[in-house]
Amino acid sequence: MKFAQRMSRLGTETAYAVAGDAAAYAEKGHTVYPFHLGDINRPTPPHITSACKKYLDEGKTGYCPAAGIKPLREAMAEEINRTHGTDYTWENVSIQSGGKPTIGKFLMNVMEEGDEVLYPTPGYPIYESQINFFGGIPKPYIYREEKDEFVMDMDYFQSLISSQTTALIYNNYQNPMGVCSSSEEMQKIADLAIKNDWMVLSDEAYFDLVYDETPRSIVSLPGMKERTVLLSTFSKKYAMTGWRLGAAIGPKDIIEKINKINTNDEACTTHFVQWAGIDALKGDEKYCQQLRKLLQKRRDACLEILRDCPGIIVHKPKSTFYLFVNVTQAMEKMNIDSYETFRLHMLEKTGVSFCTREHFGSPLPSENQKYIRLAYSGIDVPQIHEGLGKFKAYIQSCFSE
Amino acid sequence: MKFAQRMSRLGTETAYAVAGDAAAYAEKGHTVYPFHLGDINRPTPPHITSACKKYLDEGKTGYCPAAGIKPLREAMAEEINRTHGTDYTWENVSIQSGGKPTIGKFLMNVMEEGDEVLYPTPGYPIYESQINFFGGIPKPYIYREEKDEFVMDMDYFQSLISSQTTALIYNNYQNPMGVCSSSEEMQKIADLAIKNDWMVLSDEAYFDLVYDETPRSIVSLPGMKERTVLLSTFSKKYAMTGWRLGAAIGPKDIIEKINKINTNDEACTTHFVQWAGIDALKGDEKYCQQLRKLLQKRRDACLEILRDCPGIIVHKPKSTFYLFVNVTQAMEKMNIDSYETFRLHMLEKTGVSFCTREHFGSPLPSENQKYIRLAYSGIDVPQIHEGLGKFKAYIQSCFSE
Repeated sequence: MKFAQRMSRLGTETAYAVAGDAAAYAEKGHTVYPFHLGDINRPTPPHITSACKKYLDEGKTGYCPAAGIKPLREAMAEEINRTHGTDYTWENVSIQSGGKPTIGKFLMNVMEEGDEVLYPTPGYPIYESQINFFGGIPKPYIYREEKDEFVMDMDYFQSLISSQTTALIYNNYQNPMGVCSSSEEMQKIADLAIKNDWMVLSDEAYFDLVYDETPRSIVSLPGMKERTVLLSTFSKKYAMTGWRLGAAIGPKDIIEKINKINTNDEACTTHFVQWAGIDALKGDEKYCQQLRKLLQKRRDACLEILRDCPGIIVHKPKSTFYLFVNVTQAMEKMNIDSYETFRLHMLEKTGVSFCTREHFGSPLPSENQKYIRLAYSGIDVPQIHEGLGKFKAYIQSCFSE
Repeated sequence: MKFAQRMSRLGTETAYAVAGDAAAYAEKGHTVYPFHLGDINRPTPPHITSACKKYLDEGKTGYCPAAGIKPLREAMAEEINRTHGTDYTWENVSIQSGGKPTIGKFLMNVMEEGDEVLYPTPGYPIYESQINFFGGIPKPYIYREEKDEFVMDMDYFQSLISSQTTALIYNNYQNPMGVCSSSEEMQKIADLAIKNDWMVLSDEAYFDLVYDETPRSIVSLPGMKERTVLLSTFSKKYAMTGWRLGAAIGPKDIIEKINKINTNDEACTTHFVQWAGIDALKGDEKYCQQLRKLLQKRRDACLEILRDCPGIIVHKPKSTFYLFVNVTQAMEKMNIDSYETFRLHMLEKTGVSFCTREHFGSPLPSENQKYIRLAYSGIDVPQIHEGLGKFKAYIQSCFSE
């Protein structure tokens, strides 16, 4: 079959193949330590599940507005105002089936074919895929590895700006690196967005998974609300990944256009799930705090094991549930150059399953360091000890040979 | 804000505005008879709702594959094979969040910019909108009103075919007209699709709402399975419109591409909803049969009232839950030329709320008859008697003046 040309420009999220390899290895009777899953191995809080069951009984099973039910749009505006210091109303909110739909819908609205869009690499691979699919020119910005953390390379960022740059995708609390902008960096990015008249997608999927400090959003800075679409999702904060509930929040005119795309693409987001979303937003914060504490303990458990492992460099990220680990020397020691070879080799030798830098957008030719992503969202502390213990022991054995 | 050009090509489903007008009129204290809703005023069958609650309790709340869970893909393939005489496997099925998503995903795959696509008018307005949005050239085919029914105008259909025609959207059991192809007509369409090497979208949203005869699908005809994507949805058959569950079924290579779009657009369809879908497919057929009988009674109640109403012509459709009523003379008698004026006039005079021909794609300049769509999905027989009684009495009064 011959497909339309645009389909050759569509990328994908190859992390699913990692899950497939892990499952195949486990089926052979091996123990697998799942550090590849960006999904929390905890059920949705019971008050949300109970609420959903009630709405099913009440017959909230028919169509509802394409933009979402008004009470959820209101509750979402209130929640964002509370955490962001903004003054959104329900008309600034378009309910989405998760976080992902907002990426494409933002680009459809603001990017002409041939326009350049800035986005992070390594980063969520759907950015690059959707920019390409809708005929834009992807302009990846990069990060520098400093002594204790990763930081955006602002000189490189500025070197990418041209008269064709129309939009920026900004993922503060970043997947896969856990990067957080400093206040100064965030202000600098906002200044550039305003000066160059960009539209900004602020992907805040991990906004509620920030440790040790209060999360901040670029939309709170003066002049940014007018040009920013905020991607919000219930997935990570409430352990609701499979429910598919999120929202695009932004200026009323672009939200109306996004609502029109909803009408064309999906009719509406699942009706009773939307009602349960209100219970999530208005429910006890305790569960979310517990979840954050649990994840923090896992992060610290990982770091304690890996800190003195030879051949790797690991930082303490302030957010997300990922560690982005420099494995350049370990790979060199093993005489392995290919990411896929290294990933499958470590799975076979240690049972530890993970994604590599290659799963987060096309690596640039200039990159000379090698990284993997360890997700601690889907694995408990005892298995972290066991799995990363084997991981470390194996690398140690390579260095002591 | 300046939007990308493609957004100016995106249409919408204006039927929602009708619901808004009806609600506003009801809020003033008037009785409204809702003949505008394409949504069944019956709850989802209890065995499906109970199953969904069980899956919530079991924690089916995390991510699942973008293509859908394998047991649902298998169950859907079995169900289609049973009703269509096909031999699909689970790999021919891509789970979707309802029926709508398949329309855009089909076009993204088979239509280059500038390609011509045949689609029905009056018809589901999303066809025209999505063809335009993705840069295709919409080629609407039309229907003739005969003594007892509407039939496709095959001469007109054939006159539209050019070397640029790449795809056909075929909606047998058609919204809004309730049109059913004869065996001969369906074969002729299949022959043209094969001869001209078209890809075909067979929109079968109403496949299970056929009265008095066994439903047939174009995919069952020799040579068609290889070139057809079948749009299937749980919405109408199981009163599950708000659940957002459906499937694209077709050749493995295009289904894989559609799965890739799923990965980009929505991650997955709501996890526990997919499991409940299996219970729908494998559950007792009794409820669906009862629903069909209920709708048939409503259809017959509508027809009994309207058959001898002056100024209108109404046929007995064999499928869907719509009547497509010729109101040309009634509008002339009232000196009303505009559809919107007529719609609001009748709402005010009788409380009957309905969509008009204008809600189903752009009317062609050659059209000289006027039509409205009466949906009997959202209204019970006593209200049908009351509402259409007033509707008829008002028209009669205009003719007796």
